[in-house]
Amino acid sequence: MASFTTWVPGVDPDSEFSLANIPFGIATTPNDSSPHAVTAIGSLVLDLKVLLEQPEADSVFPCLEGNKHVFSSPVLNAFAELGRDVHRQVRSTIQDLLSVDTKHPGFLKDNTALQEKALLPIRKADMCLPMQIGDYTDFYAGYHHAFGVGSMWRGPENALQPNYLHLPVGYHGRASSIMVSGNPIKRPIGQIIVDPTAEPKQPIVKPSQKVDIELELGCFVAKGNGIGTSIDVNTAEEHIFGYVLVNDWSARDIQNWEYVPLGPFNGKNFATTISPWVIVPEALEPFRSRGIDLAGRPELQDYLKEERADGFFDIKCEIDLTTPEGDTSTISKVSTKNLLWSFPQMLAHHTLGGCPMRTGDLIASGTISGTKPSEYGSLLEMNEGGKKEVLLYGMDSRKFLRDGDIITLTASCGESGKRVGFGECAGRIYSTRSR
Amino acid sequence: MASFTTWVPGVDPDSEFSLANIPFGIATTPNDSSPHAVTAIGSLVLDLKVLLEQPEADSVFPCLEGNKHVFSSPVLNAFAELGRDVHRQVRSTIQDLLSVDTKHPGFLKDNTALQEKALLPIRKADMCLPMQIGDYTDFYAGYHHAFGVGSMWRGPENALQPNYLHLPVGYHGRASSIMVSGNPIKRPIGQIIVDPTAEPKQPIVKPSQKVDIELELGCFVAKGNGIGTSIDVNTAEEHIFGYVLVNDWSARDIQNWEYVPLGPFNGKNFATTISPWVIVPEALEPFRSRGIDLAGRPELQDYLKEERADGFFDIKCEIDLTTPEGDTSTISKVSTKNLLWSFPQMLAHHTLGGCPMRTGDLIASGTISGTKPSEYGSLLEMNEGGKKEVLLYGMDSRKFLRDGDIITLTASCGESGKRVGFGECAGRIYSTRSR
Repeated sequence: MASFTTWVPGVDPDSEFSLANIPFGIATTPNDSSPHAVTAIGSLVLDLKVLLEQPEADSVFPCLEGNKHVFSSPVLNAFAELGRDVHRQVRSTIQDLLSVDTKHPGFLKDNTALQEKALLPIRKADMCLPMQIGDYTDFYAGYHHAFGVGSMWRGPENALQPNYLHLPVGYHGRASSIMVSGNPIKRPIGQIIVDPTAEPKQPIVKPSQKVDIELELGCFVAKGNGIGTSIDVNTAEEHIFGYVLVNDWSARDIQNWEYVPLGPFNGKNFATTISPWVIVPEALEPFRSRGIDLAGRPELQDYLKEERADGFFDIKCEIDLTTPEGDTSTISKVSTKNLLWSFPQMLAHHTLGGCPMRTGDLIASGTISGTKPSEYGSLLEMNEGGKKEVLLYGMDSRKFLRDGDIITLTASCGESGKRVGFGECAGRIYSTRSR
Repeated sequence: MASFTTWVPGVDPDSEFSLANIPFGIATTPNDSSPHAVTAIGSLVLDLKVLLEQPEADSVFPCLEGNKHVFSSPVLNAFAELGRDVHRQVRSTIQDLLSVDTKHPGFLKDNTALQEKALLPIRKADMCLPMQIGDYTDFYAGYHHAFGVGSMWRGPENALQPNYLHLPVGYHGRASSIMVSGNPIKRPIGQIIVDPTAEPKQPIVKPSQKVDIELELGCFVAKGNGIGTSIDVNTAEEHIFGYVLVNDWSARDIQNWEYVPLGPFNGKNFATTISPWVIVPEALEPFRSRGIDLAGRPELQDYLKEERADGFFDIKCEIDLTTPEGDTSTISKVSTKNLLWSFPQMLAHHTLGGCPMRTGDLIASGTISGTKPSEYGSLLEMNEGGKKEVLLYGMDSRKFLRDGDIITLTASCGESGKRVGFGECAGRIYSTRSR
């Protein structure tokens, strides 16, 4: 393993893209308008397509022999499909190339011509959706969120359904409306019950008045499983390419009317935003953690029993709300360890009956909330079901999102010089008339 | 429009692949192991890739100028994306080429060399999944099914949720486990409540004992809509490429434990079978019908109001069950007009909040049942929630499916000489130990 000191000039020790990170993304750049693979170091993007096009790439990246095209592809699926061993080797090689004591100084460190082609300011790269997503599944593994929201909608005695502690509850989401950070979010129109006391219930069609956020962690599938086979919980991590932040935008008023008995639909499928950088498991390895230790939890079925207890991550997330006036307030800080079910458990359960995962499938955790209002992952919990205003900077406040509001999720872990972060997962709400 | 008499020898007047049909499918053939486009006439397959490779194809198919590759593609998405006008012209041209009074007799009718290359027995073509399916949505538009099953699970007073008559209820399904007719269906393992009276509920993990079928009609999206836009109910048919039969295999015991509050998951995502031929709307035009006329139905929201009342089809479907001993019983006959919501209404609702449809997306109707047991679309209804045996040929019976059982859905309409059918939507149940 090379030193964690990079020769790249101007890398802030507090950058979330330290040498300990090496995330993978897809971008267009001023010199190349075809989406292609990049990584990040400090405030710079390193163009992986350009690197692999060098004649010396064969000897520097022997693990990509015959597969150098994967970094010219407009999505990372082909790279993801090569499997975890290749990802580890590629990441190590990139870490080496960027390290002060690189084994290949002539390739990049002492090659200013290649540096000029391959390194550029991150602001000049236009980040794209990193994966072609076949299927998107959204779980409900955030126990405190499930309990809190369940209490509001069905009362505390029915907050958790009898199945909740026995299996990772989840539902199939909509892949077509997943977008990368920075895309605007149109306030959805839908059927809404304005007077919940009237019987029979009479919906009207109007723009949602309760557009909300859901802070989630997501993972992309590397290699999948064949139909009729299942993924073992104790080898499931080998199927995970990496992690992103997910904002599962939700229109609570639409969702509340539509969701019984088949689950959320138009209340969710108008938009889901993900952060652009795929953070590979190796980068998060030092931040392993236990999840929620729940007293009196029933014994798990064998297929959900993990040999290791630290299948979770302690990643500090933040939710920032920026008003149309430009004032930003941090409305929540919460760790991703606040989950009852780990991603290996979600994958084992998802495939128990033989459902095939494919490379590029996105699995999201469900909203991550802690136990305190300052740790809630959705406005619905912060506003106590619409009863309370969430206070913002400068005497401003919100129950739900207004047109022009920008929500930015961020997440990072690790100490100065070795920080690992996700980049931004951001979106701004607009209505047709307000755009 | 050419005559409905074909020069192709041996076409049975009762064939569901008459000149009035002209379905589109994807197959591999003895001469071409790459999946490519075909159509069917009688008991023969007509190879569309071979047709378009002829030098004269440019003048015969001017509507495909610049797009002849669409029939060499392994899926029909590129063809579907060309839009309904092109589909109509291509279908008319194929009908002409196969008609006794074709305008191009030299191209195929009098060209035995091309006939030998392009026409082959249907049994020699290996049919493939016709589309790359981005997202799969399953609605619940079969009113009699929704009421019947709702009564069983929640009692007749709560059978239909308050939203049911106001919007087409649906959920996002799993695209990765959709397969074409003929693929075997592995009995799924899952968490199941064996003793529903015990409290607290204790699931065990075992193979489903309640594998069921759901007879549905599905449609593929031709051109989609952009994110943030919606599809108008009165122009929605222009977004429909064509129709297939769908068997939404369901494990009732897994589903019953998992489905609250986020909807069906592992009880459905192990397998969905579709028929191989895409039946274009033009072929079904003569069989337009009204749907279910429900007394006292509340007024529809404007976005769901259709100018025409016949947005449904009167297609006669059958469900056949073949036992491992080889005895076949027809266990249901039902018309697809037994729907409360039309496909245009489903598309209008699905996109109301801006959810983008993409070419190749599959929208299914939900289980289609009539009012009588002989018209039910699932075993759950036939067996009255597991209480009753469904009688089969030769004193045999079933509550749910056994290993080795084959379910075959078929559907057709029209009179002799002009019949339009879907082909088979079939699958055989197996367990690992029984295969």
